[in-house]
Amino acid sequence: MTLVNRQQLSLNCDMGESFGSWKMGNDENVMPHIDMANIACGFHASDPTIMNNTIVLANQHDVEIGAHPSYPDLQGFGRRSMAMSGEEITNMLIYQIGALQALCRAQFNDINYIKPHGALYNDMMCDDRIFLAVVKAAALFQLPLMILASQQNEKYLEIADNFDVPLLFEAFADRLYQDDGKLTPRTQSNAVLNSEFAILQQVQMLANSGRVKTESGQYIRLEADTICVHGDNAEAIALIQKIRHCL
Amino acid sequence: MTLVNRQQLSLNCDMGESFGSWKMGNDENVMPHIDMANIACGFHASDPTIMNNTIVLANQHDVEIGAHPSYPDLQGFGRRSMAMSGEEITNMLIYQIGALQALCRAQFNDINYIKPHGALYNDMMCDDRIFLAVVKAAALFQLPLMILASQQNEKYLEIADNFDVPLLFEAFADRLYQDDGKLTPRTQSNAVLNSEFAILQQVQMLANSGRVKTESGQYIRLEADTICVHGDNAEAIALIQKIRHCL
Amino acid sequence: MTLVNRQQLSLNCDMGESFGSWKMGNDENVMPHIDMANIACGFHASDPTIMNNTIVLANQHDVEIGAHPSYPDLQGFGRRSMAMSGEEITNMLIYQIGALQALCRAQFNDINYIKPHGALYNDMMCDDRIFLAVVKAAALFQLPLMILASQQNEKYLEIADNFDVPLLFEAFADRLYQDDGKLTPRTQSNAVLNSEFAILQQVQMLANSGRVKTESGQYIRLEADTICVHGDNAEAIALIQKIRHCL
Amino acid sequence: MTLVNRQQLSLNCDMGESFGSWKMGNDENVMPHIDMANIACGFHASDPTIMNNTIVLANQHDVEIGAHPSYPDLQGFGRRSMAMSGEEITNMLIYQIGALQALCRAQFNDINYIKPHGALYNDMMCDDRIFLAVVKAAALFQLPLMILASQQNEKYLEIADNFDVPLLFEAFADRLYQDDGKLTPRTQSNAVLNSEFAILQQVQMLANSGRVKTESGQYIRLEADTICVHGDNAEAIALIQKIRHCL
Repeated sequence: MTLVNRQQLSLNCDMGESFGSWKMGNDENVMPHIDMANIACGFHASDPTIMNNTIVLANQHDVEIGAHPSYPDLQGFGRRSMAMSGEEITNMLIYQIGALQALCRAQFNDINYIKPHGALYNDMMCDDRIFLAVVKAAALFQLPLMILASQQNEKYLEIADNFDVPLLFEAFADRLYQDDGKLTPRTQSNAVLNSEFAILQQVQMLANSGRVKTESGQYIRLEADTICVHGDNAEAIALIQKIRHCL
Repeated sequence: MTLVNRQQLSLNCDMGESFGSWKMGNDENVMPHIDMANIACGFHASDPTIMNNTIVLANQHDVEIGAHPSYPDLQGFGRRSMAMSGEEITNMLIYQIGALQALCRAQFNDINYIKPHGALYNDMMCDDRIFLAVVKAAALFQLPLMILASQQNEKYLEIADNFDVPLLFEAFADRLYQDDGKLTPRTQSNAVLNSEFAILQQVQMLANSGRVKTESGQYIRLEADTICVHGDNAEAIALIQKIRHCL
Repeated sequence: MTLVNRQQLSLNCDMGESFGSWKMGNDENVMPHIDMANIACGFHASDPTIMNNTIVLANQHDVEIGAHPSYPDLQGFGRRSMAMSGEEITNMLIYQIGALQALCRAQFNDINYIKPHGALYNDMMCDDRIFLAVVKAAALFQLPLMILASQQNEKYLEIADNFDVPLLFEAFADRLYQDDGKLTPRTQSNAVLNSEFAILQQVQMLANSGRVKTESGQYIRLEADTICVHGDNAEAIALIQKIRHCL
Repeated sequence: MTLVNRQQLSLNCDMGESFGSWKMGNDENVMPHIDMANIACGFHASDPTIMNNTIVLANQHDVEIGAHPSYPDLQGFGRRSMAMSGEEITNMLIYQIGALQALCRAQFNDINYIKPHGALYNDMMCDDRIFLAVVKAAALFQLPLMILASQQNEKYLEIADNFDVPLLFEAFADRLYQDDGKLTPRTQSNAVLNSEFAILQQVQMLANSGRVKTESGQYIRLEADTICVHGDNAEAIALIQKIRHCL
C-alpha cells in the first residue's frame, strides 16, 4: 500500500527546528546521513527563512522533504495537546503544508510526505477523529502520511485508503516496545534503549526480519518503512552513521 | 501591461481580518458588492479556519481572491514597519501566499493576485529594495501584484517587467491626492474625503477620464485598474453600492 | 473565611478582552453597572495599553479590579487546556498578575482579587494539582481567589486555608445547575437559562436564600459571594441592570 | 547622581535569553563572574519559568537583577524597531518590569535596575521621545535606568532628574569608540576589538582614568558605572574572568 518502495529502511529525522535567533539541532552535520528530513513549518519551530535554508540544505544532500506540521505553540514546542475541531486541524495543516510547499517550489523541489509533530502526532495515533483530520489534509496534497508503526497498521491503512492516502510506517531505533507493539511510555525508566548494542540490534531485527523484541522478551512483527533518528549532538550523529551501516 | 483586462474599474476590499475569537469587519455583507477580496494570511490577522471561511464566502459571490500578506505582527495589525532583509521578506511572503494558495485549492479555487498589507505596502512603495523583494515573491507564483497608482507607475512597471510580474494599480475613492499623485498624509486634516458627493465625484473622474482633482485644485492623470473600498459598517457598505453604480 | 464582606452579592464581569486592533465587549457601557472587573492580562486577550485603559475605566466607576490570567493562547482565547506542570502554572500566573499589578499601581490603584480564565478556570476546578498551583500564586500576592461556587466549597476552602488565601465563590445568573451543584454542561440544550424571568428568579433565590433550583427541580444550597454577568450587547447590559435591581 | 555607589566598575551581562525549548547562552557558567544580570522579560526572549530559574540562579551568586524589557518581537529577538507611541512604550515596559518584579518577589528578592534591550535600547539613545517614555516607566518603579555612556551623559541626566530616576552608564569592553563617544557602527569592519590585549587595555583605561582611546587615536573621557560583557562560549567566559581581574 505504501507508495515509496525502498530496498531498505530509510532514516528520517526532525530538521529545521531553530526559531529566529535560537538555534536547535545540528542540521548541517545530520543532513548528510539521513534520507528524509521532517521540516518544521513555523507553528512549533522554524520561520520562513529557516525553512528556506533547511530546504536548500536538504537539496544539497538529495534528502527527501517531509512537512512536519504542529499545533500552534512555539513556547511549548508543539508538545502540548490543544483542543481543536477536526476542521480546524485540517485547515491548520493545509496552511502549514502549503507554506512549506511554496518555499520548496521556490527552491525547485517539492514535499514528499507529511509527518505531524509532537502532541499532534500522538493525538492522531490515539484519536480516530484527529487521524481523519490529518488524512484529509494529506489527501488534498496527494502526499503519503508518516505514522507510528504498530500492530494496528491495518486499522490506519483502512481509513487512509478511503482518501487514497498512502501511509509510511516509522519505527524507533532507540525505544523499547511493549507486547502490543506500542512504545513503552517515557514515564517508565526502561523506555529508551541506552546501549548502542541494543539499538543497533533493534535496527537489524527491524531491517532483516520486520520484528522487534519487546519489554517482556517476546518477538513481535513490526512492519516499518522508515526509522526515526535524532541528531542532537556528536554522539547521536555517530550513532546515525552506525545505524546506516546496519541497513 | 496589466494582465487582468476589465471594461471598468474593479472594487477591492480587505477581507478575512478577524482573528481567533475576535471579529473584525463585515465580510458577509461586503462580499456581495466587491470584485476582489484581499484575504489576510495569518501574520497581521486571520487564522487558517478564518482564511478557509473567507475563501468559501468569496467563492459564493464569485469574487477574485488576492493574498494580503503582512509583516509578522498581530498586535500591531501589520501597521508597524519591521526591519527585515529582502530575502527575509521574500521568504515571509512565499510562506503566507503558499498557505493561502493551499487553502484556496482545498476549496477548488486559486489566488488571482497579491496585495501586501499595511506597513509592508507603504514600505514597498517607498523602498525599491522592498519592492523588489515583493516582486520576487509574486514572480514565483506568477501572479499580478497590486500596488498604489501614482505618477510613477512606469517606474514600478519597469522593475516588475524584469520578473514578468504584471501590476494592478489601485486608487482610493475617499482619499485626497497631492499634485505629485501621492496620497495626502493622514496627519493632515483633509486627508480623507468626507462627503459622499466628493467621493463619488472622484470615482467617476477616475472611471471616465483617468484623472483626479488634487489638493491644490489641479487635475492630474492617475491610471488605475481598481479602487480600494472599506466595509466597516452599514454606512460604508451603502457607499460601496453607490460607488458600484457609478462605474 | 472570605475577606471581602458585602451586604449583598456583587456582580463581576470579564473586561479588557480586546487585543491590538480587535475590539471585544462593551466595557464603557458595562463598567458603570458592575462591582468587580476581571481584567485580562495579555495571555488570552488584552495588551499593556488595553490593560491600562481598562484600569482607568474601572477607577472612574470605582469598580474593584481582579486579575484574569490565562493559559498562553491568544488564538484560542485561553479556552484550550494546555498541559503544564504546577510550577509552570504558578510562574505563568505570577507573571501575568505582576504585570497587571504594576499597571494598576501606575494608576494609583491595586488588584483586589484573582480569577483564572477559561480553560484554566475549568481545569482548576477539576484538578487539585492545578488548583494548588493557582492558590500558590494567589498566596504570593496575598489576594483572594475567585472560584466556582458548588457543593464542594469546603474542599477548596481547606486547601486555600493552608496558604491563607481567602476564596470568593461565584455563581452564574444564567446557567442551569445540576443536583450536585455543578453547572449543566454547555453540550446540553438546557445549559443556559433563556428567559429573563428564570434568570432574575435564580438571582433572587441566590441572594435571598443562598439556593438554586436544579435541573431536576430540587432546591440546593449554593453559597456565593458574587454573580458572574456578561455584557456582550445592549440586551445583556439591560439584563445586568435588572439583576442589580434584584439585589 | 547615580544611586549605586561602587568602588569599581561592575560587570553586567544579558541573561535568561532562552525561550521554551530553545536554549541560548551559558547562564550557569557566566553568573558566577558578573555583578548584574539583565534578565529578559518574555517579549524578546524568556518565559515565566525561565525568568524564575534565572532569578534563582542570580540569587545563588548574589548578583543584582536588572529588568531587560524589549519590543514585543520574539522572532526578531527584539532587534527590530517598532513604531509605538510613547504611552504604548511606557505601558509595555510597566507590564514587563511588573512581571519580572513579581517573579523576583516570589524568590524573596527584587529588581535593582532597568536596562532596555536591543532596538529599544538603541531607539532610546536616539530619540528623546522614547527615552522619556522609558524614564517614566523607571520612575514608577523608582529604579535606576542603565543607558549607554557617551559624551552626552549630562543631557540624559537632565531629563532623568526631572523624574528622580538615577542613571547607570555602561561602556563596552570590546567595542571601538568614535571621537564623539559613540560606538563605531557594526557595519564598519573595526567595530569590535578583536584582540584580548586591546579589550583588557580598554577596560583598564576605563577603570583607572575614565577614558577610552578612539578610532582616530584620541583619548576621550567616558564616565561609566558598569561594563557590558557577553558570555556566549567558553572563550567569552574566560575573557570575563580576565576583565574582572583587571578591575
